[in-house]
Formats: sequence, structure tokens, C-alpha cells
Amino acid sequence: MDWDSFLTPYKQAVDELKVKLKGIREQYQKTSLHTPIEFVTGRVKPISSILNKAERKQIPLNRLGEMQDIGGVRIVTQFVEDIDKVIDLIRSRTDFVIVSERDYIKEKKPSGYRSYHMMLQYPVHTIKGRENVIVELQIRTMSMNFWATIEHSLRYKYSGEIPDDINMRLQRASEAAFWLDEEMSIIRDEVQEAQRIITAKQRQNRG
Amino acid sequence: MDWDSFLTPYKQAVDELKVKLKGIREQYQKTSLHTPIEFVTGRVKPISSILNKAERKQIPLNRLGEMQDIGGVRIVTQFVEDIDKVIDLIRSRTDFVIVSERDYIKEKKPSGYRSYHMMLQYPVHTIKGRENVIVELQIRTMSMNFWATIEHSLRYKYSGEIPDDINMRLQRASEAAFWLDEEMSIIRDEVQEAQRIITAKQRQNRG
Amino acid sequence: MDWDSFLTPYKQAVDELKVKLKGIREQYQKTSLHTPIEFVTGRVKPISSILNKAERKQIPLNRLGEMQDIGGVRIVTQFVEDIDKVIDLIRSRTDFVIVSERDYIKEKKPSGYRSYHMMLQYPVHTIKGRENVIVELQIRTMSMNFWATIEHSLRYKYSGEIPDDINMRLQRASEAAFWLDEEMSIIRDEVQEAQRIITAKQRQNRG
Amino acid sequence: MDWDSFLTPYKQAVDELKVKLKGIREQYQKTSLHTPIEFVTGRVKPISSILNKAERKQIPLNRLGEMQDIGGVRIVTQFVEDIDKVIDLIRSRTDFVIVSERDYIKEKKPSGYRSYHMMLQYPVHTIKGRENVIVELQIRTMSMNFWATIEHSLRYKYSGEIPDDINMRLQRASEAAFWLDEEMSIIRDEVQEAQRIITAKQRQNRG
Repeated sequence: MDWDSFLTPYKQAVDELKVKLKGIREQYQKTSLHTPIEFVTGRVKPISSILNKAERKQIPLNRLGEMQDIGGVRIVTQFVEDIDKVIDLIRSRTDFVIVSERDYIKEKKPSGYRSYHMMLQYPVHTIKGRENVIVELQIRTMSMNFWATIEHSLRYKYSGEIPDDINMRLQRASEAAFWLDEEMSIIRDEVQEAQRIITAKQRQNRG
Repeated sequence: MDWDSFLTPYKQAVDELKVKLKGIREQYQKTSLHTPIEFVTGRVKPISSILNKAERKQIPLNRLGEMQDIGGVRIVTQFVEDIDKVIDLIRSRTDFVIVSERDYIKEKKPSGYRSYHMMLQYPVHTIKGRENVIVELQIRTMSMNFWATIEHSLRYKYSGEIPDDINMRLQRASEAAFWLDEEMSIIRDEVQEAQRIITAKQRQNRG
Repeated sequence: MDWDSFLTPYKQAVDELKVKLKGIREQYQKTSLHTPIEFVTGRVKPISSILNKAERKQIPLNRLGEMQDIGGVRIVTQFVEDIDKVIDLIRSRTDFVIVSERDYIKEKKPSGYRSYHMMLQYPVHTIKGRENVIVELQIRTMSMNFWATIEHSLRYKYSGEIPDDINMRLQRASEAAFWLDEEMSIIRDEVQEAQRIITAKQRQNRG
Repeated sequence: MDWDSFLTPYKQAVDELKVKLKGIREQYQKTSLHTPIEFVTGRVKPISSILNKAERKQIPLNRLGEMQDIGGVRIVTQFVEDIDKVIDLIRSRTDFVIVSERDYIKEKKPSGYRSYHMMLQYPVHTIKGRENVIVELQIRTMSMNFWATIEHSLRYKYSGEIPDDINMRLQRASEAAFWLDEEMSIIRDEVQEAQRIITAKQRQNRG
């Protein structure tokens, strides 16, 4: 297995998507608009994790390309409402094809996991020519991201089988994260309401 | 006012501290140890914000150097317990002097703000020679950071005077953030407890 | 004139092309092949330089988009022969359109300037939607690049009108740069010749 | 051999020195002064090269710390005269100790190699505490750098024993590189002379 050859197009796709999405964030920051993108991260799945997953899901080495999360990019937002804006931004682009979408926010996973997933078919040029790779794009709030980070390391430690009592604790934390998102959303509405009032007043004073 | 000359040493200090602290995070990631540093950010205060604050606090332009948050670096952790580890790491270094510390976690601000602050006197070399600058280091969890980001933009919009009802909402959100940190800490303890048991069992099996 | 809005798509195009071309270089470095790309740089023309050129060439502000070197990317190679390989690489890509090419190596400018130029029409997505921008790609050896760097700063200092005696000196330096490229090319051939012999011998020993 | 532990302090030292020296270059670029630093690169020697050298020089693994070029930083200048300015800049710093210096420009190596070397003892903080590492700083012009890049890959291919005829070619190329530096230096003097005249005239006009 020539891992360098196999992983290079994924690495390239992740690097390009990061520059593109960070560019969008910077453009928002130069305007007076609220940026729906708080930060962007990306990674290529480590070889050991690919092999683990291949064994668990019984995927032979010559069909690793079917694994959909080898290339991963994550957009983290401040507010739940920003997620829809980001989805629209992604859908309006023409530099990749959206293969499928999964809404784990409306229907959270049994574990408590919440995120919006989009599978992108992204074209890259390498020294071997043009190639399409699948990249998983995850969109989530800072709360969802915090929780998912912790859950991921627990899942990793227990090789997927988290004990019941810890699972219950994770659920409680997931609820706390959900509550924090709710409170933040309420403030967000009030901020925008307040801003509308202020702007209206300023117009009255001028008029 | 020659802003380039004035801000250059702060920019240099922030850049150097970021490389140093990100290096620490990468070193932890290469070991099997939990990294107390989730991510590191840094910024030099924008000129407009410096001028605003100078006016508000009646600091004359020739004494701007007294302002303590022109250079800022932030370390964000997963768990509240990691903050103490980071403080120890910072205190053990000899490449800067800690001028003062403020614990806004034990005693949170009336607004609900929580963070640990350390003022560092950091030596930089510029083309004009060696110089000491003050950099504010903030240490906080992801929850605290999320809340503080929102509060900061609200405070900015209302020029410091946040209306009572929104302030109350912020307090509620601050409590949600606090609760999320609590839940996460409980899981953390259980994870470490579980790990101790697993390691003990493995030793028994070998022994 | 809203410079931020005007320059943003150029900045984005330059950033994306840099990531794409640096990716190509890294891919070569992981193989045993000689990389035709030694390094890649890019920049957006500073506003003051845009205004200077607009005045000199009498371009009105609402037609600045006609200026072809606002976005610039440079590929620097070790050997003159690498330039052809890079041109082929660029021509084989489908993520931009090549609008025109100029070969200032076969026909160097009277000043002594040598480089291969390609004008690319590159599509970017900004928060305002999809847009095409023109980016100038310069391909040159390290010698050509060294000379051009010096000539550029001289031209800038004399606002384009370099005195005759200094021009003569520049010509001499251009010849020295040319000679260095020639000598390097000869070594390159010998290296490759030597490698062929070594590989042939190794096969004999095995056979 | 735990390579991660061994190489981490070198990686950290190289990263910090790069940020410090690139900062110096940026500071010059914001002034009207000529920057003596054209660009800065750095690298930690690959493990395979460390092992090769250890075998060649008969250094046992537990004494690898004696090898002086495991951490390397390079400053490349436009003009030969800039090298002295850079040396002064380095000598004036207090954040490391200069252990030794070698002037391969006044006395070039038999191969034709020219560069100024400084061995720095640089203190870093890692998760294991404070440590001093040796970093080799190379200072050279773009011409010297171009030649050295080529020579290095030839030397690598012939495992140090470059055949006589290719060596002769390398010498010729080294002379071409030297000549290019000479021509550039002459232009540099004229540029500065010209600037003095221009400045003097402007003063006359005003006076």
C-alpha cells in the first residue's frame, strides 16, 4: 500500500477547502456583517485510524476509497442559526459537487452527537493528473464542537463501547451544551432586535 | 503618532508567544498525555480600539504603553482542571517575567466573565534593539471562551452599557456555560478513573 | 473606491493558487523525481502601485479591472529546462483558463528581463458570489529571479527611467545571471547522464 | 532511540528563530530602509541524514547531540554587503549565545562553497523543561544559495564523492555565481550613490 500516493489528493483537497473557507470568514470580518464562520479546521485521517475502521467495517485495502471521512473539514459557528447560512453558502458554490447531506441536528444521534454533515466530491490536480475525492464537511456550533471533541476521545479510549454510566454522563453534558446553544440563540435574537430599534431611532433623529 | 513603530514590538511578542505555546501543544499531542492546551490564539489590539479605550480611560497618547492589553494571547482548554496545569507551565518558564495575575474564575466578574489572566513582561528584539513589552495572557475553557466571545461583541455594540434585560440573558448563558464545564469535569474524572482501572487490570493480566 | 471589495477576489485567487502550486512541489518532494518548482510566491499589487500605474497608463478608476498584474503568482525553478515542465503542468490544469502567454526568455526585454508569463482567468467564490479574475503567473529560474528583484527596485527608485550607465551595469549583471543559468544547465545534463550510467551499472550487476 | 523526544527541542528552536528573523525582515519592509534579509528558511535534519552522518563520522547514537547541524536556519540576502549587516544584527541579540563562527566567504571551501556560519546555543522550553540546543545559522547571498542548493543535491547523489569533471563544472558555476554577486554589488553602490545625489538635490531645491 503506497500511503503517500493514496493520501496526497485528500491532503490537497483539505488544504484547498481550508483556504477557500477561511477566505470567506476573512471577507465577512472586513464587513460589518456577522460572520457565520467562527473558525475552520481540517485534517486527513491518520493511517492507523483508517486501518482500524477498515477492519471494523470489513473494507478491503483496495476499496479504501469508499471510506467517506478520510478527508475532513469542519466549520464551527457561534450560533445554531449560522449553520443554515453556512449550508446555503456551500450549496451556492460550483467548485465541488455535494454528494449527500445528513442533518444530525434535527435528528441527533443516540449518543447525543449533533452536527450537519455534507459529503463533497472535490476535484484536485496532482502530479498524476486530475482526480475527484470525497471530503466530509461537518458544520456545528462551538458547543456542539466542544461536546463532540470530548465524546470522540472517550469513544476512542473505550474503542467505541462506552460504559452505560459514562454514556449517561455524556448525555447530560450534551443537554448542557444544547441548553447553552439555546441561551445564546435567545441573546442573538435580542441583539438583532436591539440593533433594529437603534437603527430606527437614528433614522428618526435624522428625519 | 507612528503606529507602526509603536505596535511592532507587541506584534513580535504575540507572534513569538504563539509559536512557543503552540509548540507545547504539539509536544503533548505526540505523547499519550492529555494536552491541557486545546488551542492558542493571539492578536494586537486594533488602533481604533486602542484610541477608544484611551479616551474612555483618559490615557494621553504618550502614555499608551501603560495600557496592558495591547498585546494579547489566549490559551483555551477543554477542562477547568487544565487551567491550573497551564498556569504551572507558564510559571515555570524563564523567557518572560510574570508581572501580575488575576483569577476571574474563583471570583468571576459581575457580568459573568470567567478567565485566568496573567500579565507577562516579554523581551523582544526589533531593528531598534531590545525592548520589553507587556502581553496579557488569558487562560479559559472552551465554554468560557464561547461565552466571552458573545459578551465581547454585545459589549462592543452597546459601547459597554448593556441593557438590563440582555445582561440578565447573558447571566443565564454564563450559568449554562458554567454547567457545561461542570458536566465535562465530572466526565473527565470518570475517564481518568476508568483508565486507572484498565491499566491496573492489564498489569494483573501480565503479572 | 471600495478597495477591500475590489481587491478581495484577487487576494483569494492568489491564496488558492499558492496552495495549489505549493502542493505540487510537496508532491514532487515525496517522490524521487526532481521537482521543477523550487518555490512559489504570490502577492496582490499594493494600492499605491495600482494608482501609480493607472496614472501612468491613463486607466480610469472604473476600469482598473483591465490591469493584468493586480494579482501575481511566481514559480521559481532551479534550471531553465524546468520552466518548460512547469508550463506543461499549468497547461494541463482545468481549474482556470489560460488567456495569453508571453515568452520573455526566448525574446528577453531590452532591459535584460527574462521570464515566462501566463495570464490566467481564475474563478473564485466570495461572499458576493462567483467571479473571474485575471492573475499573472511568472515562471523563471533563481538567477532570473535574483536579477529581476534588483531591477525592480532600481526601476521603482528611478520611476522607470534608469540612467544609461546603471542600465549598462544591469545588462552586465543580466549576462552574469544568464551565464550562471548556462553553467547550471550543463551540470544538470551531466548529473542526469551520470545517473543513467549508475542505474545501468546496477542493472548489469544484478543481471 | 526516541526520535520525537530527541528532535522536539531542535524543531522548537528552529520555529522560534524563524519567527524572530522573519519579524526582523517585516520590520525593515515597513521602513524605507533596504532590508538585509531577503528570506529566511529553516529545517530539522531528516532522521536518515542524521544516521548517515553519524555512521560516516563514527558518532555513537548516545552522542548525537554533538552533531552541530541537526537544527538549521538560513538567512538569504540580496547583496554580499548585507551579510555583514546580518552578522551585526545576530551578534547584538541576547536571546541566544554565539558559540562559534566560520567565514566560508573570505575562505571558500575547496568545492567552491561560500557562506557565513554561526553556531548558536539557543534555550527552549519544552514539556520536559528548559533545554539548550545548538542551531547552525547560515548566511549567504541568493547566488551563493542557488549554487549551494545544486551542489548539495549533487553531493547527495554521489554520496560525497563527486567525479572530477563534474567538480570542475561546479567550480565554473561557482565562479559564475561569484561574478553575478560582484556585478550586483557594483550596481548596489551606484544605486546608493545615486540616492545620495537625489536626496542632496532635493535639499538644495528646498533650501
